[in-house]
Amino acid sequence: MKSPAKSIPAEWEGLRVDETRFRQNFEALAAIGATPEGGVHRPSLSQTHLEARNWFRKRVESLGLRFRVDGAGNHSACLDCGPPGAPTLLLGSHLDSVPNGGRFDGTLGVLAALECLCVVLQAGLRLPVNLEAIDFTDEEGTLVGLLGSSALAGALKAEHLKNPRGGRDIFEDGLRRAGLTEAGLLAAGRPTESLAGYLELHIEQGKRLVAAGAHIGIVESIIGIGSYAMTFLGRADHAGTTPMEERRDALQGASAFVTSSRQLVLEEFPGSLANVGRVLVEPGAYNIVPERVQLGLEFRSSDEGGFLALEAALLERARQDAARFNLTLEVQELMRHKPAPMHERARAAIADSARYLGLNHVSLISTAGHDAQSLAPICRAGMLFVPSEGGASHSAREFTSWEDCTNGANVLLHAVLRLARRSS
Amino acid sequence: MKSPAKSIPAEWEGLRVDETRFRQNFEALAAIGATPEGGVHRPSLSQTHLEARNWFRKRVESLGLRFRVDGAGNHSACLDCGPPGAPTLLLGSHLDSVPNGGRFDGTLGVLAALECLCVVLQAGLRLPVNLEAIDFTDEEGTLVGLLGSSALAGALKAEHLKNPRGGRDIFEDGLRRAGLTEAGLLAAGRPTESLAGYLELHIEQGKRLVAAGAHIGIVESIIGIGSYAMTFLGRADHAGTTPMEERRDALQGASAFVTSSRQLVLEEFPGSLANVGRVLVEPGAYNIVPERVQLGLEFRSSDEGGFLALEAALLERARQDAARFNLTLEVQELMRHKPAPMHERARAAIADSARYLGLNHVSLISTAGHDAQSLAPICRAGMLFVPSEGGASHSAREFTSWEDCTNGANVLLHAVLRLARRSS
Repeated sequence: MKSPAKSIPAEWEGLRVDETRFRQNFEALAAIGATPEGGVHRPSLSQTHLEARNWFRKRVESLGLRFRVDGAGNHSACLDCGPPGAPTLLLGSHLDSVPNGGRFDGTLGVLAALECLCVVLQAGLRLPVNLEAIDFTDEEGTLVGLLGSSALAGALKAEHLKNPRGGRDIFEDGLRRAGLTEAGLLAAGRPTESLAGYLELHIEQGKRLVAAGAHIGIVESIIGIGSYAMTFLGRADHAGTTPMEERRDALQGASAFVTSSRQLVLEEFPGSLANVGRVLVEPGAYNIVPERVQLGLEFRSSDEGGFLALEAALLERARQDAARFNLTLEVQELMRHKPAPMHERARAAIADSARYLGLNHVSLISTAGHDAQSLAPICRAGMLFVPSEGGASHSAREFTSWEDCTNGANVLLHAVLRLARRSS
Repeated sequence: MKSPAKSIPAEWEGLRVDETRFRQNFEALAAIGATPEGGVHRPSLSQTHLEARNWFRKRVESLGLRFRVDGAGNHSACLDCGPPGAPTLLLGSHLDSVPNGGRFDGTLGVLAALECLCVVLQAGLRLPVNLEAIDFTDEEGTLVGLLGSSALAGALKAEHLKNPRGGRDIFEDGLRRAGLTEAGLLAAGRPTESLAGYLELHIEQGKRLVAAGAHIGIVESIIGIGSYAMTFLGRADHAGTTPMEERRDALQGASAFVTSSRQLVLEEFPGSLANVGRVLVEPGAYNIVPERVQLGLEFRSSDEGGFLALEAALLERARQDAARFNLTLEVQELMRHKPAPMHERARAAIADSARYLGLNHVSLISTAGHDAQSLAPICRAGMLFVPSEGGASHSAREFTSWEDCTNGANVLLHAVLRLARRSS
């Protein structure tokens, strides 16, 4: 039943990633920014993240690939295996992590991409496209979120950099540390015609593949993500001399919204998601009624209509909660990535490869954001998942068996070969 | 109807504070750490607070008074107007402020105390007691709360310094800046027999005096205050891939407690108070479900039974809210000051003085904490309030008319003369 094997030359069928090299690279990166809990702490453009990037650069050069860095700080390994003027099939993910994150998220995809280039280089293949394994800047959103991939896709605008969700100071410090500029970020867009497609391997970050007994998840579409800074404004008063009834306590409205927004999603938007992950209280003293509370809200929905309805409902709920405690509300949109369907050809290439390699696969929606959603509007983008044991993610408990990692990298390799052929 | 005037010698009756000097001193201090909003920012042992203390030291010396500083960093002006070995009648308040606080809170009491010493010095009075105008360290609780007065009263224990409510770092930085040590703080207690009493003038920080048309409030007792760090512990998860139902979101339980603790006080403890003024969320990223949320809770009750019942009910409510969201709860008591009744003789001296000066007065309970509550267990402590227009406090909107300030200082002066006589 290996019917689609005919789509690549027979001499390519036996190609596989080098498991030893793949794993050595993985262990080397897991040691950079390692946490006592067994994860990594590599917030975007932090010292540890830049160390990881430096390791990547040296590794790329030692493997005989061409290193490239663009105005957005995206780091790439390039293999010019196509004819002159050929478009580039981009493969990649990111080496940054959330604070105290896991070892697999992002890193696995960058290293699997690097493996694909190594295999093609060593086999001396000529393809209709060039290959590039890319480490995108700030996927996780310590600064802005999907920063490098948005920049490469030409979707980054100056307004997105005005109020980075981690705050301007952290953003500017990061750019300075990495030697980047806002002008460079805004000019990092690539011509659409230069891209033959984009493929990304990632851990699932959920339990669906394990539950389905599948080796490979083929992403149908990536969920839409929006984030807001919501500021509840009341009045600072002495917490001893101001009766409870007379207060305009900003934390009351903000707290009411934290619990009511959860209820709203559970009751009216099943399957959608919301999270308040940041809270800043001012003045922040035990004996002062909070005057100003800023919540960091993120919400996700997989279809575009649902996304807009959820956004509107959350904003309305926040207004009601503010009004109930006699507060004013200021909302500021920080980020918005619409739901992004993956390209049919990319999905077919992944499915054919999984079938050829004898691996069970299922289709699913990605409820996490990924760089692939930045690329989806401008090229044939596809994404595959490998199982996350226990479903843990953004935590040191993140784990994928090495067999699953290798299976995923081999499916990526064969999907690259298939998509490259079809791109010609 | 000036009946109690007989309690002081006739030649003392005409003594009044020097309104010009009092006001000049006030304006000088209002300029130190001044905020654009018209308040002051002088958190305890911050640079601006130390500047204010330095101004005080120079002023004390230029006025011909003796300057003194103790192991707790309390700064004093001393007037040795008593016979050898006489006890000291202490007057004072504090020069530190909450973050972005007002110009009157604390400062007015220190300067009114200083005025009393100046008047007695200039009149060449001999009293049965010595006088001391003191600026207590960290009344507001940037570090610990009532720190200098607790130390002077011998009530400060090493355990109170282990987990300062502003955090150890801020505490240690402050001590370093001020040249203080924990050992010095713990050894700053004074022998009870060395104190003839304590009097403090303060703004009301509420609207009761204005509502009653009174010039002077005589404090019957000071409310009890407790504070806790309450830590809700859940699990950090990816906010995109973890279904809402499966989360253990620490911020949900913490937010539920913020609103439910308010309801608890309103419904079951009318007249008591609670405030959550600080919130720390970890890891603190938009796309991670909060793992750990620490709330800074403060609660107040004017009678001792009510205080204990309120404390128990708040802790039980927090446990319930944590359990409801499948969280664990850790509580840490940071501070506890029991309700403190003021001494009958001190209250009578204030009432007699107000009557003698033709000022309306009412008795009330202080719902704010004050250094006087540290002194109440060890000497005759008394406190008087002047009206706060609009009731604002711990804010730049704090305001007391200059006439009310001067009235208060004159009542303090005459209460000092009366209490000094009665102390003999």
